[in-house]
Amino acid sequence: MTDPDAHIPRGDDDYTPEAAARRRAFVEARTGARLDHVGRYAFDPAGLPGNIENFIGAAQVPIGLAGPLRVEGEHARGEFYIPMATTEGTLVASYNRGMRLLAECGGARATVVARSMQRSPVFIFDDAREARAFGEWVEAHFEPIKAAAEATTRAGKLVSIQQFAVGPTRHLRFNFTTGDAAGQNMSGKAAFAACEWIRTNRPGGARYILSGNTDTDKKHSQMNVIATRGRRVVAEAVIGREPLKRLMRVEPEDLFYARQVSQAGAFLAGSANNGAHAANGLAALFIATGQDAANVAESHAAIVYAQLLDSGDYYWSITLPALIVATVGGGTGLSTQSECLAIMGCQGAGKADKLAEICAAMALAGDISLSCAVLAGDWVSSHERYGRNRPR
Amino acid sequence: MTDPDAHIPRGDDDYTPEAAARRRAFVEARTGARLDHVGRYAFDPAGLPGNIENFIGAAQVPIGLAGPLRVEGEHARGEFYIPMATTEGTLVASYNRGMRLLAECGGARATVVARSMQRSPVFIFDDAREARAFGEWVEAHFEPIKAAAEATTRAGKLVSIQQFAVGPTRHLRFNFTTGDAAGQNMSGKAAFAACEWIRTNRPGGARYILSGNTDTDKKHSQMNVIATRGRRVVAEAVIGREPLKRLMRVEPEDLFYARQVSQAGAFLAGSANNGAHAANGLAALFIATGQDAANVAESHAAIVYAQLLDSGDYYWSITLPALIVATVGGGTGLSTQSECLAIMGCQGAGKADKLAEICAAMALAGDISLSCAVLAGDWVSSHERYGRNRPR
Amino acid sequence: MTDPDAHIPRGDDDYTPEAAARRRAFVEARTGARLDHVGRYAFDPAGLPGNIENFIGAAQVPIGLAGPLRVEGEHARGEFYIPMATTEGTLVASYNRGMRLLAECGGARATVVARSMQRSPVFIFDDAREARAFGEWVEAHFEPIKAAAEATTRAGKLVSIQQFAVGPTRHLRFNFTTGDAAGQNMSGKAAFAACEWIRTNRPGGARYILSGNTDTDKKHSQMNVIATRGRRVVAEAVIGREPLKRLMRVEPEDLFYARQVSQAGAFLAGSANNGAHAANGLAALFIATGQDAANVAESHAAIVYAQLLDSGDYYWSITLPALIVATVGGGTGLSTQSECLAIMGCQGAGKADKLAEICAAMALAGDISLSCAVLAGDWVSSHERYGRNRPR
Amino acid sequence: MTDPDAHIPRGDDDYTPEAAARRRAFVEARTGARLDHVGRYAFDPAGLPGNIENFIGAAQVPIGLAGPLRVEGEHARGEFYIPMATTEGTLVASYNRGMRLLAECGGARATVVARSMQRSPVFIFDDAREARAFGEWVEAHFEPIKAAAEATTRAGKLVSIQQFAVGPTRHLRFNFTTGDAAGQNMSGKAAFAACEWIRTNRPGGARYILSGNTDTDKKHSQMNVIATRGRRVVAEAVIGREPLKRLMRVEPEDLFYARQVSQAGAFLAGSANNGAHAANGLAALFIATGQDAANVAESHAAIVYAQLLDSGDYYWSITLPALIVATVGGGTGLSTQSECLAIMGCQGAGKADKLAEICAAMALAGDISLSCAVLAGDWVSSHERYGRNRPR
Repeated sequence: MTDPDAHIPRGDDDYTPEAAARRRAFVEARTGARLDHVGRYAFDPAGLPGNIENFIGAAQVPIGLAGPLRVEGEHARGEFYIPMATTEGTLVASYNRGMRLLAECGGARATVVARSMQRSPVFIFDDAREARAFGEWVEAHFEPIKAAAEATTRAGKLVSIQQFAVGPTRHLRFNFTTGDAAGQNMSGKAAFAACEWIRTNRPGGARYILSGNTDTDKKHSQMNVIATRGRRVVAEAVIGREPLKRLMRVEPEDLFYARQVSQAGAFLAGSANNGAHAANGLAALFIATGQDAANVAESHAAIVYAQLLDSGDYYWSITLPALIVATVGGGTGLSTQSECLAIMGCQGAGKADKLAEICAAMALAGDISLSCAVLAGDWVSSHERYGRNRPR
Repeated sequence: MTDPDAHIPRGDDDYTPEAAARRRAFVEARTGARLDHVGRYAFDPAGLPGNIENFIGAAQVPIGLAGPLRVEGEHARGEFYIPMATTEGTLVASYNRGMRLLAECGGARATVVARSMQRSPVFIFDDAREARAFGEWVEAHFEPIKAAAEATTRAGKLVSIQQFAVGPTRHLRFNFTTGDAAGQNMSGKAAFAACEWIRTNRPGGARYILSGNTDTDKKHSQMNVIATRGRRVVAEAVIGREPLKRLMRVEPEDLFYARQVSQAGAFLAGSANNGAHAANGLAALFIATGQDAANVAESHAAIVYAQLLDSGDYYWSITLPALIVATVGGGTGLSTQSECLAIMGCQGAGKADKLAEICAAMALAGDISLSCAVLAGDWVSSHERYGRNRPR
Repeated sequence: MTDPDAHIPRGDDDYTPEAAARRRAFVEARTGARLDHVGRYAFDPAGLPGNIENFIGAAQVPIGLAGPLRVEGEHARGEFYIPMATTEGTLVASYNRGMRLLAECGGARATVVARSMQRSPVFIFDDAREARAFGEWVEAHFEPIKAAAEATTRAGKLVSIQQFAVGPTRHLRFNFTTGDAAGQNMSGKAAFAACEWIRTNRPGGARYILSGNTDTDKKHSQMNVIATRGRRVVAEAVIGREPLKRLMRVEPEDLFYARQVSQAGAFLAGSANNGAHAANGLAALFIATGQDAANVAESHAAIVYAQLLDSGDYYWSITLPALIVATVGGGTGLSTQSECLAIMGCQGAGKADKLAEICAAMALAGDISLSCAVLAGDWVSSHERYGRNRPR
Repeated sequence: MTDPDAHIPRGDDDYTPEAAARRRAFVEARTGARLDHVGRYAFDPAGLPGNIENFIGAAQVPIGLAGPLRVEGEHARGEFYIPMATTEGTLVASYNRGMRLLAECGGARATVVARSMQRSPVFIFDDAREARAFGEWVEAHFEPIKAAAEATTRAGKLVSIQQFAVGPTRHLRFNFTTGDAAGQNMSGKAAFAACEWIRTNRPGGARYILSGNTDTDKKHSQMNVIATRGRRVVAEAVIGREPLKRLMRVEPEDLFYARQVSQAGAFLAGSANNGAHAANGLAALFIATGQDAANVAESHAAIVYAQLLDSGDYYWSITLPALIVATVGGGTGLSTQSECLAIMGCQGAGKADKLAEICAAMALAGDISLSCAVLAGDWVSSHERYGRNRPR
């Protein structure tokens, strides 16, 4: 049992600088740590409720600027500067290099091809036959279920309910569009209302758990790759042979040769991504812009598909099947986060598709840069040059 | 082609406040964004080289404090306060709740069971037979290969080389221990030296690519689950029936029942984690402590294994097979990051195992809390209460 | 280049005993093998066209009889004897043992919960945007596409078209019901007609490959587990504590304990099946009844879901998400195959659901038997007793 | 409860024709089936003990002959005729076509690159720390464990023990070589002896289950792809542009283009095989030669790796990571099975590697044929021509 004095102090003034200072003093007293910098945040904590509890201060993560990234999306069009919050040396420089090549090649075409956020309750019955009958009942009552779900939300729309049968259970994967929010909570609340409607209206009732783990919230899954989570976004470009050689010192043929090797490696390893390192850029952009960094788990999945063209140029695409981004809600309205969204013109309502396109284009730039660096043999040496803080 | 004026300004003074201000002014001028808060960082940018390029300022991510988390590790022993940098409302509160239950049950026993960081070059031959012969040659020359690799590093030790045969290629997965560093760069550099030694000393030479994608760097993979990446850490606890009921309003039997359902869901979905949401806690702790947040991709994988004991108590374990943490290098030495490590007594050399144990214990607390909340039906309502900044 | 004399003789009389004898003589002459038994088949080869080319004789696979297997399905009701063609000692005995236990417990409830056979062409465009527009066009033209597909077949019905976006491509997964046939060829032909209709009628045409590998024909995949291939069938039973102890010398609690361990193992390994050995029974039944044994690749996938009931009895279910069976077409009409179908009352039209139910019930019996044997410690010794032809 | 008369008759004379006839009469009486052909087997059932129980007769599966298949292996060298027992029309013809192309291109180079059969017990402890200590104890006692295992077998050798930590458990994957036997039973018995040795000799004993499901016996798994099960075999060939065009009406460039598309499809689907249809050929050869057809589950996994050469020729390889074959034991000694092995010179001891090479070369031929057929647009039409027994 814990010493009662060990409990972190709370009070009615939880989101004041004073409360934060009190907690810092508390933890300093109990641990011997000095929290000088943690308390030197630049924002007004009064805006924090809904984002954090037991507030003590802020992590300050250095931001580097990459770009311009040229995007030819439907929502993002033109040149963008990308704020990347990271502490991994060379990361910004590497993405920047890919962006430069992309810019010389007309930029990345980016397209949001699907939108779908989930909550997946599971209903449990006496046997598979009853579960199947339930599934048919759900199909027949899609409209009132949808109405019940959508009554809880302005932005969320229930688009479909996938069903998966396992023994006497029926997993329902509620697929929502959630506007410019990431939408996990919105989906959870709407799915809860839908489940309650089902429980109340189905003759005989229904027993359920609000998540049966097929939404794979905060987890990579093949389900996400197949059926989309968040946004499914494609970025693609034709990389000219000449700029590829000039900027990257790599021939398209070598790149395509290596691609065959590395995608066999990814397949063998059972990897979530047959490309290079989407997680790097996404994590940096997510932190800078107030996205939920835990969603790197889902968002880093990717399918790279490339072709060596008859022209000798290189067609390169990356498909992010589970990119979760928001421009409203979560941390997007906080001070530095909001400013970073503003750099890309992605603040507030109506901007999530734009941000998704930029993310995919950035991921493409990063994959191009790293893949070429590995081949050109300068991967290790560039880490040497830039990454000087590394232990040896 | 990009307007030459579009290039982000660089100079000899890249890591001065002036250079950062110049870049902010540049991007403000080109985008119309106002970067008031981004520039109000609390640290001295002179310490940044090796962590970032094109520095413009800092993201300020609110930190909440959870705990005390009671850990019975081999390195972490006692009660710890956990700094979590996040913008997801309820997250700190939820983890905190799990920690409280854990504390009442004697804390989480945490154990690092394996350590292994990789770089996986692929060697390419004319046919499978030559690739196989190469594999035998590598086995026979492990000692000089190891010596060549280790000559590049103080902390890194080459422990083993796994081999995977695909067609005429041989993927070599170099497994290193890397001390208290995450070790990706160290491993890359050491593997490069090893490959160069191989290329030079093998009769007939050898052609290779420094990564064949079986290291699955910054990517989840089944390979990681099977063969470890970073640290493989187990946290486990016996949750007493009484505190479970009192604090969580859940019976052990209900929890175990639901566990059967949700792990079938995870298996069906091809999920990276058959538990709840390790990514949430890890991302928050990673940002607070200067870990590489991109490694959430790998680190969020987990195998939950539980048993309902004859006593009516509940044995709960979580195994993180690919937890990547560091207490030296990367962002761990930066201002707020270092302070947050200090809160847990995890600053500097000799502390990475301790941090890994704390991470696993935290993940266990978070899974307990969310799993119980889902069952007790208060998952949606707690998000309502705490997550008030969410779009609706 | 091959010696012209090396070519296997063909002629107008390919399906006569004489032609088969000529080929046997040919291969005997060239290899020194003696084919005494291969030529001693019991059927009239005149019935073979459509099943085989270059016919030389028959493999004679011993059939053992297991049962009675009590099935409480919607199509299979009562007690069934199961013909199993295998050469693995103890397999029939082991399944038989499980069937005996099932019979004492009221039999296995079996339910076909979904039916879906696929062919999945991929359409290729200049970019993702055009591919997305194509996808919308396909949705808008589902009815004529369905008509074009169904014009090629009497039994096949196009139920839905799933779409998966990858770069500039669009994978269409045509889901058919195919009556009592396995339906791969039927689906292929119908999908081809649909694709041709699309190519002809879509403004601008369309370029496609008839399979883009998301049908995963003759291959296990997570896609199959999620989205069904063939039939999704559940078999379930409540195993009484008393007969379990009496017949299997195992306590329900031990079984449930071990279940937690072994499903963690399956999850770690990335296994296609978190149960025991569905492949064994299915392969044996498939060979006996003229199913396509290559479909063991898909059909052996399973999700076992179990609960220990408050009564102390054991609820056990197995879900086969990709069971491919037929009672018409393929080898089902051949001599011994047809007789073996007759043993179960599964000959001809209208019987595929019945056969599917029997397969699932059999798989449940086999999993029960092996799981108990492993726990009771008699697994190795029973192989000793029965499997005497094994090398040592 | 089952009617006592429902039990299949047994007796002391179980493997006589009379006993089989009695059982046929029994099942005919109870089901109304007529088993004329099932009883017309050509072998002496006295040889069956160890292969089957409750013997009633034989399945007669038509065998077609494909070939010659030119193999340039280390064990299989020259031209081979391949007996394929199947009822899927066009299968033999399709493989035959691929073999013809291969023959014109110098045959398939085939290489066994690894051998490893498993039994994977799991040891269970109080906590992860004890499990880890146990793992170290096992490493330190490898030699006596090996001795205990190998005392049970003449052919089996314990090569290594992989360890996987999950919570308080330790999965040990015993890797054996098993000579010319498939070796599952041999491995099981040897692992059992090893476990008993461990239980007896470890201070404090040890509690285990003989399989923790990481051997994934009779199941596909990523574990198998990564770590080999049975034999890991590569077949590879350089397909000349000219014969490819002449025989298959396909250009290498088209084939390579389509390869990029289809391997993205396989990756998206989470497929066990990024090639075409290895299961088809393997199932047919397995049935003909007395292999365990259930092992199609494992054996059908494959990694195809290809390159378009500068010469314009096409390098094609297929790696089967989990091919399980035997030339002794199981059904290999039965009448037709033994004759079919003889056709390939693969009867008896010392031939399993040869058979494995032939299997891989056959799989390559089949993949080439089908892949080309899909592209040349004659896939559907050839099924029309040959597969006339199909329902429509």
